[in-house]
Amino acid sequence: MSDITVTKVKQVGVLPTDKELGFGTIFTDHMFVMDYTTGKGWHSPRIVPYAECANYPAMIVFHYGQAIFEGMKAFRTEDNRICVFRPYEYLNRFNRSAEKLCIPKMDVEQIHDALFQLLALEKNWVPGQLGTSLYIRPFVVADEPHLGVKVADSFKLYIILSPVGAYYKTGFNPVSIKVEDKYVRAIKGGLGEAKTPANYAMSLAAQQDAYAEGFGQVLWLDAVHRKYIEEVGTMNILFKINGEIITPELNGSILGGITRKTVLELSRSWGLKTTERQISIDEVYDAYAKGQLDEVFGSGTAAVISPVGELSWKGQRIVINHNQTGPYAQKLFDYITGVQSGKIADQFGWMEEVR
Amino acid sequence: MSDITVTKVKQVGVLPTDKELGFGTIFTDHMFVMDYTTGKGWHSPRIVPYAECANYPAMIVFHYGQAIFEGMKAFRTEDNRICVFRPYEYLNRFNRSAEKLCIPKMDVEQIHDALFQLLALEKNWVPGQLGTSLYIRPFVVADEPHLGVKVADSFKLYIILSPVGAYYKTGFNPVSIKVEDKYVRAIKGGLGEAKTPANYAMSLAAQQDAYAEGFGQVLWLDAVHRKYIEEVGTMNILFKINGEIITPELNGSILGGITRKTVLELSRSWGLKTTERQISIDEVYDAYAKGQLDEVFGSGTAAVISPVGELSWKGQRIVINHNQTGPYAQKLFDYITGVQSGKIADQFGWMEEVR
Ligand SMILES: Cc1ncc(COP(=O)(O)O)c(C=O)c1O
Ligand SMILES: Cc1ncc(COP(=O)(O)O)c(C=O)c1O
Repeated sequence: MSDITVTKVKQVGVLPTDKELGFGTIFTDHMFVMDYTTGKGWHSPRIVPYAECANYPAMIVFHYGQAIFEGMKAFRTEDNRICVFRPYEYLNRFNRSAEKLCIPKMDVEQIHDALFQLLALEKNWVPGQLGTSLYIRPFVVADEPHLGVKVADSFKLYIILSPVGAYYKTGFNPVSIKVEDKYVRAIKGGLGEAKTPANYAMSLAAQQDAYAEGFGQVLWLDAVHRKYIEEVGTMNILFKINGEIITPELNGSILGGITRKTVLELSRSWGLKTTERQISIDEVYDAYAKGQLDEVFGSGTAAVISPVGELSWKGQRIVINHNQTGPYAQKLFDYITGVQSGKIADQFGWMEEVR
Repeated sequence: MSDITVTKVKQVGVLPTDKELGFGTIFTDHMFVMDYTTGKGWHSPRIVPYAECANYPAMIVFHYGQAIFEGMKAFRTEDNRICVFRPYEYLNRFNRSAEKLCIPKMDVEQIHDALFQLLALEKNWVPGQLGTSLYIRPFVVADEPHLGVKVADSFKLYIILSPVGAYYKTGFNPVSIKVEDKYVRAIKGGLGEAKTPANYAMSLAAQQDAYAEGFGQVLWLDAVHRKYIEEVGTMNILFKINGEIITPELNGSILGGITRKTVLELSRSWGLKTTERQISIDEVYDAYAKGQLDEVFGSGTAAVISPVGELSWKGQRIVINHNQTGPYAQKLFDYITGVQSGKIADQFGWMEEVR
């Protein structure tokens, strides 16, 4: 895409020290922006300084939530290359989300090239210490100012970048999770499998209640039977039961995580039995009672692998693997972060270098 | 609230002619804005020129949809007063939506006073022809720039105003409605009873499909059984069956419409039997088969009353009252719009005058 106009900042910023890095509050100097107008298609791709944008208060996204996003990462490898983890997986999911939200299809190659051009410009913003990364947030919002509920006729696509610190600053901490029995997040026939603001708006009250009760996360159950396991706030969930890896199938109401996919591919390549199917919370509690619940862990771009030390469902608490990180969660974490940091050879072709 | 700062436009705009008025695309000269900051509460109330606002692309509402809105109307009466229809009903619902979305509570009196001060300034923007009005859109968006899913620490409340044309330009047109059997809009334990962008994002694909099939609206069924009637896109639904007014009860997944409430109050005052309860689509089709489905109509702020001429469920079409507006829908419409226009005495105290 040779037609990206580039407007650079006058004075580039400075990457904070690793200690100063949190998640999602610091942004790099530049961002990518592109417009969509009905009749004209996607147009005016540009790289501009990261700054406030002017929008009419009547813009459709403020009122009717027509928007999608993605979340992926670039890493500085040990030999000082900048590599993105499975970019096409995320960008293809971005387009699938677009379809669900009636947002015009994007050209994945074009977005890919724009992202890599932006990353080439922002190389200095990629932190290098193990566990740190440059978080990449592509998103689209409906910016037509119009107060009637309708599919918008104009949109803006952004890619913004944020250097982020290590998720586990003091080593793996197994998380204590509340199995949610009051709120629901998504349902078949809804938007659960899209990465769209609506799903996260649905989770705020539950998250707030869970925090207040001392839990780190919420585990969602299905909306109809309130017993089949769906996913965690921003992670998919996997169980190791009697040596087998079991995770809920992609049934239309959960997000098809790229980390989930990576874990399943890896597990299969390592010869483990891995199964995607409906799994109820009773089954998990039963496995626990029989002493067969080896490990529970979440998978997501932010944390990679997040061991679950405790589940609490309607007040019944079970402690998994003595509230210690299990060996399989550790192995997955070490392997995936090893490939991301360049320590382990990238034999699956996950990493794409920014040149 | 004496502390509202007012910045006026240099040159006031001109209200378009009634013919030029549509819905939600023209805005008045000024808007009300107020900020919330954790620790400080709601602050800096101000009336400023309606214009684009600067926001960071990382603002939480773009990514996690933390936002709410309302929709109400001011009218120019026949004797040239400006009156708002049931403002406290809408503002109290605004606050109930806030709670569901973890948005800080507002002081209803303060918002009410701000609205009336804004309306006093914008009196010339209220059109006068029967059926026209000034649509009032209060809304709150989470504007903290932060990429992690969380309840924001800063918000902006806006009130914007849009003069709107008559909904029925050529008299009542009964609408043809598709009973949705693929998509769902909301579920108990979700956000259905809040006025929040997520619910409307959920409806876009269904709306698009229904339009393509030649229907004017979608009628939602419950998410669990897929048979109990919920509501229409932006209206509640009411049935007149064998002389009785029946409407789905407020079960947590539908919006408690102010027009619905008005219709129920009116119907009771007129001595009709009115019932709020679970009602299935089968029951409606059964009543039709028995010749007892007198009328079907929607209720909402935009249309007031919208007669339904046809329902189509899984390809089975039923035509209601020969696809003509029923006498009861007409009576309700005439009465409510009569009070709104000042033609009929306001015996229920619905109208509040802007002085
Ligand atoms: C709701 C939800 N589920 C699962 C995930 C994990 O997906 P991924 O591994 O692609 O990051 C995320 C985070 O992206 C999420 O937001
Ligand atoms: C989903 C939904 N249901 C019902 C209604 C009708 O509510 P009201 O009569 O308060 O306008 C609306 C419109 O406000 C709506 O958006």
